Amino acid sequence: MEPLIQIVEVGPRDGLQNEKEIVPTDIKIEFIQRLVQSGLKTIETTSFVSPKWVPQMADHEKIMQLLPKSANVRYPVLVPNKQGLENALRCQAKDIAVFAAASETFSQKNINRSIEQSLQEFTQVIQLARQQGLNVRGYVSCVLGCPYEGKILPSAVVKVAKRLYEAGCYEISLGDTIGVGTPLEAKSMLSTVAKEIPIQHLALHFHDTYGQALANILACLELGASTIDSSVAGLGGCPYAKGATGNVATEEVLYLLNGLGLKTDINLDKLIDAGSYICQFLNRPNRSKVAVATIAKRN
Amino acid sequence: MEPLIQIVEVGPRDGLQNEKEIVPTDIKIEFIQRLVQSGLKTIETTSFVSPKWVPQMADHEKIMQLLPKSANVRYPVLVPNKQGLENALRCQAKDIAVFAAASETFSQKNINRSIEQSLQEFTQVIQLARQQGLNVRGYVSCVLGCPYEGKILPSAVVKVAKRLYEAGCYEISLGDTIGVGTPLEAKSMLSTVAKEIPIQHLALHFHDTYGQALANILACLELGASTIDSSVAGLGGCPYAKGATGNVATEEVLYLLNGLGLKTDINLDKLIDAGSYICQFLNRPNRSKVAVATIAKRN
Repeated sequence: MEPLIQIVEVGPRDGLQNEKEIVPTDIKIEFIQRLVQSGLKTIETTSFVSPKWVPQMADHEKIMQLLPKSANVRYPVLVPNKQGLENALRCQAKDIAVFAAASETFSQKNINRSIEQSLQEFTQVIQLARQQGLNVRGYVSCVLGCPYEGKILPSAVVKVAKRLYEAGCYEISLGDTIGVGTPLEAKSMLSTVAKEIPIQHLALHFHDTYGQALANILACLELGASTIDSSVAGLGGCPYAKGATGNVATEEVLYLLNGLGLKTDINLDKLIDAGSYICQFLNRPNRSKVAVATIAKRN
Repeated sequence: MEPLIQIVEVGPRDGLQNEKEIVPTDIKIEFIQRLVQSGLKTIETTSFVSPKWVPQMADHEKIMQLLPKSANVRYPVLVPNKQGLENALRCQAKDIAVFAAASETFSQKNINRSIEQSLQEFTQVIQLARQQGLNVRGYVSCVLGCPYEGKILPSAVVKVAKRLYEAGCYEISLGDTIGVGTPLEAKSMLSTVAKEIPIQHLALHFHDTYGQALANILACLELGASTIDSSVAGLGGCPYAKGATGNVATEEVLYLLNGLGLKTDINLDKLIDAGSYICQFLNRPNRSKVAVATIAKRN
């Protein structure tokens, strides 16, 4: 039987990509191995964005070679354009992800293209990828707010999400990139998008910048959401507010789901150990409260 | 018109009481002054527990003398027994709070009395206080779990809460002392207690040890809860898991309430400044994510 709730672990990619110190490939692989052992079934592992822009992900080719072989684990990789897709294909990627924004200004500043330009390019990327048998995940960022434009209307999110879904994405991940949303806004946005795309093809990608992520997730679970993106140990910061928090911690999400009686097949203790492992390497405090409290109680 | 949701700020007492370094009285008063200026209407300021047990609160008499005079602000103080009540009365306290536990072992270890012994003593304290015209708040700790006994049944919470309410407490604050609860448990506990005590006389006192506090608060707001205890800047740790988080941060609660359109009459920026002030004095990182993100954006 399928677990009821899917967690998409984004720590190795979204979590690590802004770390200044380059993490050696073998540490990343050991980290991914530990995440697999915790029972996670989808782990975003790297990005085929140019190393000029994201030096931390320059080892994508080696990562792809060394990924733990596991028939039932998906390893989506980020692909920015056709060139990225070609590189990912050469590395035998089976799952890719493309990323668009619901905010025009963010799209211009983040990927240097208008929303429309990005959607046209991604439509081609998705079609080429599908022809090669790849699964494509689509990200929409700024779904609850933009660092430049402020509030973003649900209708703007729908427009982008629908284009990506109709182009062939199996799932659209709705990103509160700057973590400003609260539960009513999150529900309103999700229910608007779910009118156009079946909710089982939508994922929640919430950042905890204002500590609201878990409350937002709870509100969206009540609407029937069943896929959640998160980052072990709360890896990843917020480039728009230095020192602030990024992705919601996977441990917090799992603790919540366990408490709600929602099945995931993920082992919390092994997950905490995986987070601990990478935090020790990075020599930084663990940003998961569940991890901190659990580790303190173990000692 | 009364604000819809009441926040009870517990930073100056619950937040500071475990700080090792003694905070000078004038700093505490300036801190309280800033909290008042943010619009908070109930601020727990000190404790009349013996200075032998809680040295941080040894200046309770001076604190009471120097509290900012404000007709519409309540300053509840913690009172452990009849002696404490006498001292509080001598200091012209108008609002006191007593604290019992829903866990037998916790009661024995924390206040050195059985639940029944504590309730008998508190009943006398409450009656004496009421005769003097004081308002009495009752705390029940360990409502969602105990560091010694594990799970606590809602029926155990009801028993203690009802006794305190019937003895004359105007409000019962339900404390998830170790922060282990999740939303379904919180709702189940609250709705069970609300069968015996009108929900407008119940407060939520949730700790964020496992990052669940805001999700639990959201779930309980849906049931009609309207009073929330919290601690600015997330002041206060967890004595049962060193390094872990204590009370939910007031900033996070206010951000949530603002997002839900629930009125409080509290100014978030001034609240953040009050938290910043005390964190700077304590030379410790601000534990409110809202504060960290907001301050980063200001710079």
